[in-house]
Amino acid sequence: MRKIHVIGIGAGDPEQLTLQAVRALRSTDVFFILDKGEVKADLTRLRRDMLDTHLPQGTYRVVEARDPERDRAADGAAYSPAVGDWRSARADIYERLIAEDLGEEETGAFLVWGDPSLYDSTLGILEEVLGRGAVAFEYDVVPGISSVSALVARHRTGLNRIARPVQITTGRRLAEGFPEGVDDVVVMLDAQQTFRQYAQEDADIYWGAYIGTPDEILVSGPIAEAAPRIERLRAEARERKGWIMDTYLLRRHPRD
Amino acid sequence: MRKIHVIGIGAGDPEQLTLQAVRALRSTDVFFILDKGEVKADLTRLRRDMLDTHLPQGTYRVVEARDPERDRAADGAAYSPAVGDWRSARADIYERLIAEDLGEEETGAFLVWGDPSLYDSTLGILEEVLGRGAVAFEYDVVPGISSVSALVARHRTGLNRIARPVQITTGRRLAEGFPEGVDDVVVMLDAQQTFRQYAQEDADIYWGAYIGTPDEILVSGPIAEAAPRIERLRAEARERKGWIMDTYLLRRHPRD
Repeated sequence: MRKIHVIGIGAGDPEQLTLQAVRALRSTDVFFILDKGEVKADLTRLRRDMLDTHLPQGTYRVVEARDPERDRAADGAAYSPAVGDWRSARADIYERLIAEDLGEEETGAFLVWGDPSLYDSTLGILEEVLGRGAVAFEYDVVPGISSVSALVARHRTGLNRIARPVQITTGRRLAEGFPEGVDDVVVMLDAQQTFRQYAQEDADIYWGAYIGTPDEILVSGPIAEAAPRIERLRAEARERKGWIMDTYLLRRHPRD
Repeated sequence: MRKIHVIGIGAGDPEQLTLQAVRALRSTDVFFILDKGEVKADLTRLRRDMLDTHLPQGTYRVVEARDPERDRAADGAAYSPAVGDWRSARADIYERLIAEDLGEEETGAFLVWGDPSLYDSTLGILEEVLGRGAVAFEYDVVPGISSVSALVARHRTGLNRIARPVQITTGRRLAEGFPEGVDDVVVMLDAQQTFRQYAQEDADIYWGAYIGTPDEILVSGPIAEAAPRIERLRAEARERKGWIMDTYLLRRHPRD
């Protein structure tokens, strides 16, 4: 029976790999790396560097494939209704990779940035491939340090305040209004910088980009002051590197 | 200047330590372990085992202290209005530990289960100690695999569904009603098994106790069927071990 590990590899700092993840890497024969286009070549290289660091050369194979997600993700529309089509297209690719590049007795792995449980489609796609019934495999999930945990660790703050909830959501949702019933909101996948919409709120923002990498940028403070600064730094960084991955916590001062 | 690491050590599986955490352990002179009473002796031992595994004997000291949290946490009232008093009492202890047991040029560490960013008071208490001005130190935070990430990894599911938000909250809050605007809710600190209140909902539950340890118990399924099973297993486990740490994800089927 083929085996597959879905391995959370942390938010960007190779030291954020867990011992369990290193062990899973070492038991893997074939790594599937889905290339999201040239702007993400840095991320592909970071993953290859991780493998070089932890695995003896010649003990594994790397299979790269083209990810159909690329363009839609780049313009923030990955979560449109078209997501179902995209998912099927991706399942086609995964199915082919597993069937053609992974031997019957071998172990493959997908390396997921952050934690596979947060805004990542790998598990859903593997379930879709299994559901089709054309190729059989077992799989397990190795949790990773999410960009959310890495963000607040760098800012030395918690996600929740005492006895209060925290919500993790998308920029698109935040654009529809501040979530009900919570004052602490983590926002992912926000190409539109929706935090600007809340610049007049009595709130603090804890923002970070390229967290855990040498390019890391952190900004925190009252949102009215921090928002223009984040906007400027974000534009500069995006221009310089060609891509950006950022996340933030909005912490509204409770009204009660 | 004294230094302190606040190190997330994962949800119970020693393999969930990150390489960064291991490095931080190795740079530590003094570990502060706060004992929450005999029922948690297992957890103290697990931490000592981690140190034994990763550090040469004789290279570090361990200072154990009594944690004032104990009794209130045991009956689920740790998050009452009295939490401020408890926090001050804990800050007194931390301040004394740092002043008396950590040399001016030494590095200390607090080991936090899961991730220091979720329902943990260590960062808040260290800030309180710093604010008092009696003892000075630098500190950093090493993120860890939270019980939330570990839970869903074991269940091989995500926290959020595509493009949807997820909320992390307490049993006490869940008792007041299902949170607004979300269908995926992770519940921590729920000694009252509040999920039972939602047994008639069209929802699934993904529950786990002692996640990542040899005692791990996992249950998932439609909540109407799973709730009585969880209640029974939870009671048996608590009886057998004397304490329980559990977490769950409630996933309501969207009404739209």
